[in-house]
Amino acid sequence: MSEHAPPSPDTEGPTSEEVLESGRLRRAFVADVLAALHSDDTDSVQTLVEQLHPADIADLIEVVDAADRDALIGALGAKLDGDVIAELNDWVREEVLRLLTPADLADVVTDLETDDAVAILQDLDAEDQQEVLKAIAPEERVAIEDALTYPDDSAGRIMQRDVVTVPEYWTVGQVIDSLREDPDLATDFWEIFVVDPQHRPIGTIRLSWMLRTIRSVLVSDVMQREQTLIPAAMDREDVALRFQKYALISAPVIDASGRLVGVITVDDVLHIIAEEAQEDIMRLAGAGDADINEPVRDAVRSRMRWLVINLCTAVLSSIVIGAFADTIAHLVALAILMPIVSALGGNAGTQTMTVAVRALALNQLSAANAARIVWKEVQVAFWNGSALAVLAGGATALYFHNPCWGWCSGLR
Amino acid sequence: MSEHAPPSPDTEGPTSEEVLESGRLRRAFVADVLAALHSDDTDSVQTLVEQLHPADIADLIEVVDAADRDALIGALGAKLDGDVIAELNDWVREEVLRLLTPADLADVVTDLETDDAVAILQDLDAEDQQEVLKAIAPEERVAIEDALTYPDDSAGRIMQRDVVTVPEYWTVGQVIDSLREDPDLATDFWEIFVVDPQHRPIGTIRLSWMLRTIRSVLVSDVMQREQTLIPAAMDREDVALRFQKYALISAPVIDASGRLVGVITVDDVLHIIAEEAQEDIMRLAGAGDADINEPVRDAVRSRMRWLVINLCTAVLSSIVIGAFADTIAHLVALAILMPIVSALGGNAGTQTMTVAVRALALNQLSAANAARIVWKEVQVAFWNGSALAVLAGGATALYFHNPCWGWCSGLR
Repeated sequence: MSEHAPPSPDTEGPTSEEVLESGRLRRAFVADVLAALHSDDTDSVQTLVEQLHPADIADLIEVVDAADRDALIGALGAKLDGDVIAELNDWVREEVLRLLTPADLADVVTDLETDDAVAILQDLDAEDQQEVLKAIAPEERVAIEDALTYPDDSAGRIMQRDVVTVPEYWTVGQVIDSLREDPDLATDFWEIFVVDPQHRPIGTIRLSWMLRTIRSVLVSDVMQREQTLIPAAMDREDVALRFQKYALISAPVIDASGRLVGVITVDDVLHIIAEEAQEDIMRLAGAGDADINEPVRDAVRSRMRWLVINLCTAVLSSIVIGAFADTIAHLVALAILMPIVSALGGNAGTQTMTVAVRALALNQLSAANAARIVWKEVQVAFWNGSALAVLAGGATALYFHNPCWGWCSGLR
Repeated sequence: MSEHAPPSPDTEGPTSEEVLESGRLRRAFVADVLAALHSDDTDSVQTLVEQLHPADIADLIEVVDAADRDALIGALGAKLDGDVIAELNDWVREEVLRLLTPADLADVVTDLETDDAVAILQDLDAEDQQEVLKAIAPEERVAIEDALTYPDDSAGRIMQRDVVTVPEYWTVGQVIDSLREDPDLATDFWEIFVVDPQHRPIGTIRLSWMLRTIRSVLVSDVMQREQTLIPAAMDREDVALRFQKYALISAPVIDASGRLVGVITVDDVLHIIAEEAQEDIMRLAGAGDADINEPVRDAVRSRMRWLVINLCTAVLSSIVIGAFADTIAHLVALAILMPIVSALGGNAGTQTMTVAVRALALNQLSAANAARIVWKEVQVAFWNGSALAVLAGGATALYFHNPCWGWCSGLR
């Protein structure tokens, strides 16, 4: 969430509107960049990307293929800053980081807020991580090392350490003056946290409330005491659910003793919600943590795992069918009807499973309503099963001119 | 995103922490509420829910079954306000709205911000909608009717109309004074929009920037000129992608002539991202727009549709198998091996389809990289297909003691 200086009006590069079409890079623009790259025209590349938002530069790096990507990264030079790298897709980021020296990386990381810096560093192997950390200024390094002590995917990893805090006996005027005077403060924040002498959060002030209040009012009279506190060890998926449920913009993160140690802001949560939904979808489809940027090698491996499990379950079906080999030899219609039974059974199961998995992910399914939901699914299964049995059974009886077969097939 | 008054310290009801366990209602708490309901003890119910956040009251209404729900809604009385209804799951909300009179509904809707009011009213049938609108104060009514003229699921439906705007020649001090003096202004906002004399947005000021700047500085010197403008007709899914991509907190909505007509804030976008991901998952599983709160009747109907399509495709497979009935009668092993071929083919297809569908939903797949992605999927299919063919073929040859069968089965 860092600030981008407005472009000076005399730059020549195309603006975002000329480059984007319904949120995606125009094909013609990508072609222009590739043409400039292929003729080694670094200046043209730099002019083309000049006015782009870091997120769009990240898209550009993702969209070109691996061969052009190396050249593009070379040509981007200083435009490839921390903000661009923080926006990159995980798979592509890994590739880009491999091309940077530890010293380059340290420069990139130093510009970022702690949470983005941690997101980049946590994917490096231990040795590279140490080397980059050594090249970072001590103060920033301590913050990053501290964040890395929290478990993967916990609130402690995604929080920012720069929090604006005030004591409750201050007035609104004192808060505004202190904000104006302290040059080291974060530039972007949405809420101010009120803390007690032990640095425990006791209230929140939204900036809009403070701006609408006259200077003499006490902080304790503007603040909202109801707060959603996030323990630093909380899983990021739970953090995202809290933000959704209570419509939070930012939330204070506390350590085990209740002291305020950081803040999580909603822009980071947007990414988490999208990533967690992506993870759920991909795992339901047995495609690992894939997306289209996953390299062939990793995609083969992650999908293979699920296909092999599938092979084993399919072999189980085959063994069952094998036990009835003699019957099938006498009555081939059984083999003909098999796919209908397995397809419908499989799909009805997938429907119920998906609804249940999502309800768990969204915290909708709990001990308090589990029995009711199971009973609902039983009813749905009964009605759909009955209707399809009549349909498939009737069709079978007509087709084979044998009412008994229809009846048996209908019963499944 | 409305403000909740802090509870007075002398209330007796349990606090959120006592009621919730990892974000879900404790089973014991729900049991307490049900016990009070069953003994017609309205006062106890009111005391129990006294300190709950509207989102938690909505959860409580969702979690009890249909029979208790009517009684609960009666017992909640004034606690069942617009904020609670806005938080309800779509299916449950429909049920609750049926229990309220148009006059009650008008009261509820009047308390809400336009976007939440529209979300509730748009689901009513035309007649009820008119009746509720008639009972709402004219000013509010015009805003709601205006919102309803925008297409379903467009930015115009989800935006708020209360926008804080200032001209660029004002100073920071003038802005702060006007915020303090205007009692009609929205309480919760995160950014102020700078407009030209035609009311077109020309810049954005984050409140934190304004608080950190001295009073004499001009608005035009604090504002950021780079903005992401949202046309009112834009689909809400595209709006959500813009928020994610550019880490926005709020964004100005413009009409066809470029005038500022509203603002969309990130808390509404959180819900959209979650809902759209839910929709994608459910449609991939052929379960319609389901969730666990969908009534049995609707669930049967929406899932049946997909199961019938499935029945038809399964019949196609059966017809193909039927064409080889004589061969199968001679060689039953073919019938035994069938599920392996169909299971692996189906699952590998699902993996590729899911990756592609998600990439389209997240704006990652475009004309610029389509060829590369297709080529990647072909390679993955080749390697996984070859490996599984060797595995399944080898196992078949060993099992049936017939290398030729293994070879043919391996070839698929």
